[in-house]
Amino acid sequence: MTEHDPKLIGRLNRVEGQVRGISKMVAEGRYCIDILTQLQAVRAALGKVETAILNEHLGKCIEGAITSGDAVEQRAKVNELIQLLERSR
Amino acid sequence: MTEHDPKLIGRLNRVEGQVRGISKMVAEGRYCIDILTQLQAVRAALGKVETAILNEHLGKCIEGAITSGDAVEQRAKVNELIQLLERSR
Amino acid sequence: MTEHDPKLIGRLNRVEGQVRGISKMVAEGRYCIDILTQLQAVRAALGKVETAILNEHLGKCIEGAITSGDAVEQRAKVNELIQLLERSR
Amino acid sequence: MTEHDPKLIGRLNRVEGQVRGISKMVAEGRYCIDILTQLQAVRAALGKVETAILNEHLGKCIEGAITSGDAVEQRAKVNELIQLLERSR
Repeated sequence: MTEHDPKLIGRLNRVEGQVRGISKMVAEGRYCIDILTQLQAVRAALGKVETAILNEHLGKCIEGAITSGDAVEQRAKVNELIQLLERSR
Repeated sequence: MTEHDPKLIGRLNRVEGQVRGISKMVAEGRYCIDILTQLQAVRAALGKVETAILNEHLGKCIEGAITSGDAVEQRAKVNELIQLLERSR
Repeated sequence: MTEHDPKLIGRLNRVEGQVRGISKMVAEGRYCIDILTQLQAVRAALGKVETAILNEHLGKCIEGAITSGDAVEQRAKVNELIQLLERSR
Repeated sequence: MTEHDPKLIGRLNRVEGQVRGISKMVAEGRYCIDILTQLQAVRAALGKVETAILNEHLGKCIEGAITSGDAVEQRAKVNELIQLLERSR
């Protein structure tokens, strides 16, 4: 189990509300550019959540390297992360 | 008023459910990499909605250009779109 | 043949110089973060060139729609563009 | 001084050649979509170089954490990286 920053849940709940709002905009026939602007805002908010979790993960890799004194396991975790970042390019 | 593809609402509802699922993963202390993988999936799904709306918008600009025979108004709509794309880079 | 904004060539030449500079930084063993910062600058510069060409292309689609009065050919050009944008997500 | 993978220089030299090729395409008045396709290829190639350097950097942070037994300095390096990733979103 990994303890995450509880503020992340608040941020994700706001994103959920934003997505619901966009769904309503589509149903109401709102102008394309206004919908695209909202979609960008959601993407930016999700990007901030991603960066925060990336930050948590790397912090734990550093601590794990010191506690265990073993680079191999922590290196494997970094490789897992790099593969994830590669898929998202 | 702009008529949008009704399938977009279904897609956005699924994204809303995915975001709720991620919020739960954070609360349950799930592993960072698993959460990041889900966040990537949501971003990809939102990207597809953006592309679909972009497609609708450009289709309407083309039709508008022919109907009105006036490039100026349609060009203004394209400029609006380009500014939006520039902000997202 | 398509006439492009001649300023684009100047911008691309600067990007070429920046990439050569990064190659030198790698050879000199410069710090990772400094290299990543330069790579980001190049990506931003290329993004601006992409936006400028996208802008030119859409402008021509609008003009083509009015000149030809036929939406089909211009729609095909927009579809080609949408497929390109989808690949880059 | 940081030792980097010498293969990176070869990759960057190829990118430099690709950018020169795009400059020529613009000068020759080639079709927008063909130029955009090449710009995407360059962006993807640069993305791979970024991921490789990110990988090197994180590997060194892990090793540094074990060698020094001090999380603070390595954490500072990760923070520097997170700030960089945030700027690029």
